[in-house]
Amino acid sequence: MIVSDKPFGDMDPETFRREGYRVVDWIARYFAEPERYPVMSRVKPGEVRCALPAAAPERGEAFDEILQDFERLIVPGITHWNHPGFFAYFAISGSGPGVLAEMLSAALNAQGMLWRTSPSVTELEEVATSWLRDLMGLPAAFQGVIYDTASTSTLHALAAAREAAVPGVRREGMVGRRDLPRHRVYCSEHAHSSVDKATILIGIGHDGLRKIPADEAFRMRPHALEAAIAEDRRAGIVPLAVVATVGTTSTTSVDPVEAIAEICSREGVWLHVDCAYAGVAAIIPEYRHILRGVDRADSVVVNPHKWLFTPFDLSAFYTRRMDVLVGAFALTSEYLRTSEAGAVRNLMDTGVQLGRRFRALKLWMILRYFGAEGIRSRLGEHMRLARLFASWVDEHPDFERLAPVPFSVVCFRSKPKGREWTEDELETRNQQLLDRLNATGEVFLSHTKLDGRFVLRLAVGNLRTEERHVRRAWELIQQLASRH
Amino acid sequence: MIVSDKPFGDMDPETFRREGYRVVDWIARYFAEPERYPVMSRVKPGEVRCALPAAAPERGEAFDEILQDFERLIVPGITHWNHPGFFAYFAISGSGPGVLAEMLSAALNAQGMLWRTSPSVTELEEVATSWLRDLMGLPAAFQGVIYDTASTSTLHALAAAREAAVPGVRREGMVGRRDLPRHRVYCSEHAHSSVDKATILIGIGHDGLRKIPADEAFRMRPHALEAAIAEDRRAGIVPLAVVATVGTTSTTSVDPVEAIAEICSREGVWLHVDCAYAGVAAIIPEYRHILRGVDRADSVVVNPHKWLFTPFDLSAFYTRRMDVLVGAFALTSEYLRTSEAGAVRNLMDTGVQLGRRFRALKLWMILRYFGAEGIRSRLGEHMRLARLFASWVDEHPDFERLAPVPFSVVCFRSKPKGREWTEDELETRNQQLLDRLNATGEVFLSHTKLDGRFVLRLAVGNLRTEERHVRRAWELIQQLASRH
Repeated sequence: MIVSDKPFGDMDPETFRREGYRVVDWIARYFAEPERYPVMSRVKPGEVRCALPAAAPERGEAFDEILQDFERLIVPGITHWNHPGFFAYFAISGSGPGVLAEMLSAALNAQGMLWRTSPSVTELEEVATSWLRDLMGLPAAFQGVIYDTASTSTLHALAAAREAAVPGVRREGMVGRRDLPRHRVYCSEHAHSSVDKATILIGIGHDGLRKIPADEAFRMRPHALEAAIAEDRRAGIVPLAVVATVGTTSTTSVDPVEAIAEICSREGVWLHVDCAYAGVAAIIPEYRHILRGVDRADSVVVNPHKWLFTPFDLSAFYTRRMDVLVGAFALTSEYLRTSEAGAVRNLMDTGVQLGRRFRALKLWMILRYFGAEGIRSRLGEHMRLARLFASWVDEHPDFERLAPVPFSVVCFRSKPKGREWTEDELETRNQQLLDRLNATGEVFLSHTKLDGRFVLRLAVGNLRTEERHVRRAWELIQQLASRH
Repeated sequence: MIVSDKPFGDMDPETFRREGYRVVDWIARYFAEPERYPVMSRVKPGEVRCALPAAAPERGEAFDEILQDFERLIVPGITHWNHPGFFAYFAISGSGPGVLAEMLSAALNAQGMLWRTSPSVTELEEVATSWLRDLMGLPAAFQGVIYDTASTSTLHALAAAREAAVPGVRREGMVGRRDLPRHRVYCSEHAHSSVDKATILIGIGHDGLRKIPADEAFRMRPHALEAAIAEDRRAGIVPLAVVATVGTTSTTSVDPVEAIAEICSREGVWLHVDCAYAGVAAIIPEYRHILRGVDRADSVVVNPHKWLFTPFDLSAFYTRRMDVLVGAFALTSEYLRTSEAGAVRNLMDTGVQLGRRFRALKLWMILRYFGAEGIRSRLGEHMRLARLFASWVDEHPDFERLAPVPFSVVCFRSKPKGREWTEDELETRNQQLLDRLNATGEVFLSHTKLDGRFVLRLAVGNLRTEERHVRRAWELIQQLASRH
């Protein structure tokens, strides 16, 4: 069926209402039966692409037909991040209130490059990021701005650090300048790859990133950091920034930020703290301590799209040196000049991207819908489930846990008693176990390596995950491991 | 009313359905009465922020209360990009099918960093960008990848150009290297500020960007580009990239890409073409010529969120040198290694951002819903309306048009006959006219400067804009101009 012969205009509002109800029904069912599909998609490479026509249709099609194809051709190629058995990477949630907010945001289609292009985009961003900052107990000196991902936040942190450290970098750049020494960025060997990418992009080079060894609990060693900086200084290399992590990707370990902040302060080096995953845990009073020392950082990133029920993407970046960030990026073309420029923040001045989505709306709605209390109980429950799982691993003779569990991620592996294992054998064994687990369609886990050892990760973080799902994961793990 | 005492889990599916219908009703009414609100928000700086509590609520709130506050406190601070009287910057549309797609995308909450984290995200991105590429008549050698904004696309283009031009840049960087000469990026004086920002960010420095003068129709002069490159080469400066534009921001002028491509090919310099706004016009056979020469570019950016009815944000980046882009950015942490890595594209390898939203869904649904024919007729209509408006300006003795109208943007100003005007007087006069126009709430226009002259811009591009809205804008302009 052809949609209509109307050559101009949008879908008419009554059709939108009808199709909108249909989409809401689809989503409501998706949320009510979150285990309807296998967690990890089972399609083969190229299968989705090959199922689709090679070219766009010449004539428009009815929306209900497109929706049928969505269900028939696209959904089988989806890995369900909203499935309660999703335990891979960091488990996230696209919550109901977040989805509703995204609907409104898409309909308004506001683009917040300037204050005047939607004052609410700018000001709600200020409000929602300050609510979150206060919930985590960070000082009011931190001003928030919303980007898409932590990769972008960390890129902006390092660009601001470069602006602060390299004289004339904005105007003169770095290439072909005989007056500049080499520069260095520091992070732990467990820091996220976004630090590597940002260092490369801003022109420091991958060799300009020095990875500091971690201790037995996968935390950066401050003494090693100190020694590295001293060694570099002796070689004429200038420290540009240190990136500490609260909640590393592999094990969610917490770098000793207080000690690191002390070093950065003494050395006059920009400190950026990546709290992308774990920062929100500080909303719980008993976890407030994880951000100790972060108050002294120059910049911080926290991702509500990781563990605060916010549909992807929304990364909250905080800095107490907004002037430096703006100094690195602000640049006003004539066609973007406005009379109110001095009196307001124009989001385009705070980064690479000129255009900004209305992301703050979902964060604001989520904070209101769940409330501080509701957030605390949910995060607390995820951590309880992770500890519960860890206790089963610890009690079982044929499994071992390979890292502490400070939050909601457990690192473990199968290592049956009664014989000696080489690391290669254990890797093969656990890789096979992982593949079989993920093939069940009931759960999806991922892996990492710790000190050369292949490790399975179980990450709790989806709102739909209940104790029975974690129990089922453990059952499957034991069953499949014993079949080897 | 407190939402519920359930301490865990998400909004329940039946509540989601009820509130989802309510949100769909709100949007359907918003689309049915798009002139209900003033186009440009009338709030004062700080007004939205001050109307909101200083802290997040302790207890969760019911969604209908949040929705009431959205209408009462947030909507007044919205500038309505979906209003038919929106003629500022580039007028864009968040279309019905695009909004429906965003609902589904938010609910799935798929994150496409790896092929396996949702094969459909990767493969539909390949399909939708190739459909669009073919509609515009670009060669199949261009592979597409979706980013958020054109600023990000152009940043990636220049990062890839740097990777291709600067030996060892990824590993060794650029700072403190005695072996490297200075480098230069070239664009016309009318290119977008994103070129400036990208040049600064990758460490070439703002002085490393050389703006080439334009001709009387605001198009880059190829001879001036040639001369600039020759002069730089004599001074030992290495050309890094040229950015040409098809549809500049101020006047939508089209750089002579064929001649520029010829120079780039001779000089061995990366050519990036910014078609963010105007590229889609090539979907109309009579406009195919605007992309002449673009087939020889190394990279191209086209923004469906500008003039292809796609809710913000979605920028399509194309390159025939995907290997260089991946070489600049790919970097796989152990926890992201997968067995299928060689056989599939992993989106994380194509840029700064590790995480990727499922943006392709809206582009695919929009291309299907409107069809090639429906897109052509809508773009054609916008251009007809712009030409109509230009004809009124041309015929009126008290107005002048200041640039050609190749697409859907008209640059003009009020300049009543019968006396001499200084440029200062004309700027004051037209700035006041603009402020009065925007204060009516019926229309929203923006300005630019061309050769030092203050110019009003009327940009047609919203799906809801009809001839009557353009007529009304012209009426208001004449009325308010005659009142001085």
